[in-house]
Amino acid sequence: MTVEGTLAETQFVETVLLNIINFQTLVATKAARLAHAAGRSQVIEFGLRRAQGPDGAMSVARAAAIGGVRSTSNVLAGCVFDLPVKGTHAHSWVMAFPDELSAFRAYAECFPDHCVLLVDTYDTLTSGLPNSLAVARELRAAGHELIGVRLDSGDLAYLSRQARRMFDDAGFPDVKIVASNELDEYVINSIRSEGGLVDIYGVGTRLATCAGPGGGALGGVYKLVEFAGKPRMKMTSDPVKSTLPGCKRWLRAKDGNGRFLIDVLDLGHGQGTPFAAGQVAYDPKHPQRRKTVAPDCQVVDCRSVVMENGRILQPALSLMEMADYCEAQLQCLPEGSLRLINPHVYKVGISKRLLDLREKLQQEHSS
Amino acid sequence: MTVEGTLAETQFVETVLLNIINFQTLVATKAARLAHAAGRSQVIEFGLRRAQGPDGAMSVARAAAIGGVRSTSNVLAGCVFDLPVKGTHAHSWVMAFPDELSAFRAYAECFPDHCVLLVDTYDTLTSGLPNSLAVARELRAAGHELIGVRLDSGDLAYLSRQARRMFDDAGFPDVKIVASNELDEYVINSIRSEGGLVDIYGVGTRLATCAGPGGGALGGVYKLVEFAGKPRMKMTSDPVKSTLPGCKRWLRAKDGNGRFLIDVLDLGHGQGTPFAAGQVAYDPKHPQRRKTVAPDCQVVDCRSVVMENGRILQPALSLMEMADYCEAQLQCLPEGSLRLINPHVYKVGISKRLLDLREKLQQEHSS
Repeated sequence: MTVEGTLAETQFVETVLLNIINFQTLVATKAARLAHAAGRSQVIEFGLRRAQGPDGAMSVARAAAIGGVRSTSNVLAGCVFDLPVKGTHAHSWVMAFPDELSAFRAYAECFPDHCVLLVDTYDTLTSGLPNSLAVARELRAAGHELIGVRLDSGDLAYLSRQARRMFDDAGFPDVKIVASNELDEYVINSIRSEGGLVDIYGVGTRLATCAGPGGGALGGVYKLVEFAGKPRMKMTSDPVKSTLPGCKRWLRAKDGNGRFLIDVLDLGHGQGTPFAAGQVAYDPKHPQRRKTVAPDCQVVDCRSVVMENGRILQPALSLMEMADYCEAQLQCLPEGSLRLINPHVYKVGISKRLLDLREKLQQEHSS
Repeated sequence: MTVEGTLAETQFVETVLLNIINFQTLVATKAARLAHAAGRSQVIEFGLRRAQGPDGAMSVARAAAIGGVRSTSNVLAGCVFDLPVKGTHAHSWVMAFPDELSAFRAYAECFPDHCVLLVDTYDTLTSGLPNSLAVARELRAAGHELIGVRLDSGDLAYLSRQARRMFDDAGFPDVKIVASNELDEYVINSIRSEGGLVDIYGVGTRLATCAGPGGGALGGVYKLVEFAGKPRMKMTSDPVKSTLPGCKRWLRAKDGNGRFLIDVLDLGHGQGTPFAAGQVAYDPKHPQRRKTVAPDCQVVDCRSVVMENGRILQPALSLMEMADYCEAQLQCLPEGSLRLINPHVYKVGISKRLLDLREKLQQEHSS
């Protein structure tokens, strides 16, 4: 992302851009990983209670939808962002009745066509599931169908198979199995690999806070790269904190099927040859590692102007349009890039003239 | 915390209470750990760019102050919460000038009495520190004093010793050394144990997102414990998700010096003897583990009514009053409870009559 303006203008927007873009990018990425792990099953965002602040929870619902978690239990987010709102009743609903079956019946009476029953208040196998089946039969007799049951504790892979079999044997193959309880992409993957039969995963804490190896933060930064027409560069003893100088172009090489091969950062202007197919891209950390971008590649400029002189230039997309775009783009990544464990890291190189400029500025500073 | 009301009223506030109390408790705890690790050095909250949403960042500044991190770089939070605002210039300030010394001089001219210089834009030892010393001398010649320098990369323990020696040798013993760069309580502890001489730690990402072994969420829940005058209890196959039934009192036993010994949960009313000094408290997870609370202990009820019929009953404290209270309470914890690694876990027991009630309800459900 490039921001151009006076020093004061560009500084003024720094913190808010970092705050919004870092977090929402992280959430959308986590959501995409969850949706990928869930395969054909759906994922619902359940994180409002554990999100880091009420506004944070709104950002979570929005960014999660873009990443592929396209519904939420956050009613306000549903209203504001026009997202489907999904969920079940609470344990307290069941506990406020003399027994579980009365509670389920009362809930089914309130929501005869949108009834999902939480079955673990007392015991999933001996109480919750049999009582939910009784209500499924009563609903059908009255011309309605039970939508689903939610498992919220215990061995979710095992319980989902038991629940599936119980409903299938009783003639209710369309009752959905919803699972929740400290889920993330790794747990979902494990449930699936153990033969779990879950139709819908509700993911709360670990989506809302982006728990994972990297912690709950994306380390995006905002750095001065050009001032008064001259490229600028930060250097430190810590090479990761050095910056790439100059205003840049962000190019992407694609093969004939539209699959992404490599992204290349090139200078927006300046001396040397502009990057194009057939040229060499350099690993910015280890420039001795290089890759020739095949001459028959399509090389596209990924950037476009989104705002100029205070006016938004791009049409506003709906969240679902953004989610569709995101999903389609993810499908174009190289094979292995979507792997959960040890994924293939997508390559980002720099052009010869950007490499040369960095060398030149480093030499000027060290002399 | 106990909320009493109709079922609808108490459900209505559930999510917002969980969202606010879970996160701010977590931040205050993280801040207390940071302040403890820093010893006599100060800690500043630097997390706005990495907080999970702009509102989240405001909650971070507020809760961090209560926990002991009593200043922030978040200017809005400083205004709203009447907190000291502290920080330095950005790398871009230095990069917008032809050289580092000109940038430092210009900054010192703007803030002659509040000047903290960021010294790692090019090289801390060969450029940033010597240039900051030059500016310290120029400021003194003009009747001012340099406040400090900030180290933001490299070996902070080593660089802080070098910086301290340079300023001390030159007659500037009061120039403060500020350190930042992905700090948390463990890194601060390590810097101190390596003889680092840091006066002020700036902690951003890992405070704002509460990074740590537990991830960025505190798992506090909100459960129905009594309905229509009768105690209620949730049971599941997962014992950690079972609840303690009934409306409760929260008692704390203290020794003659006011040091905390154990907290005990007792029933607010109901059958059996109310808990008092001299009685036995039971570990709720392993009731065979028990502890007799010494008869000469002081046992106090920790709860008070904060809101009734929509009116706040407690006087509003300032953030600094809350921070002082928090600090004083932390000093009363048993020795070892504040240890960073493998701390002594503070004991929370339950009374005999609460244990008996739980047993009774479990037996009723299983029969």
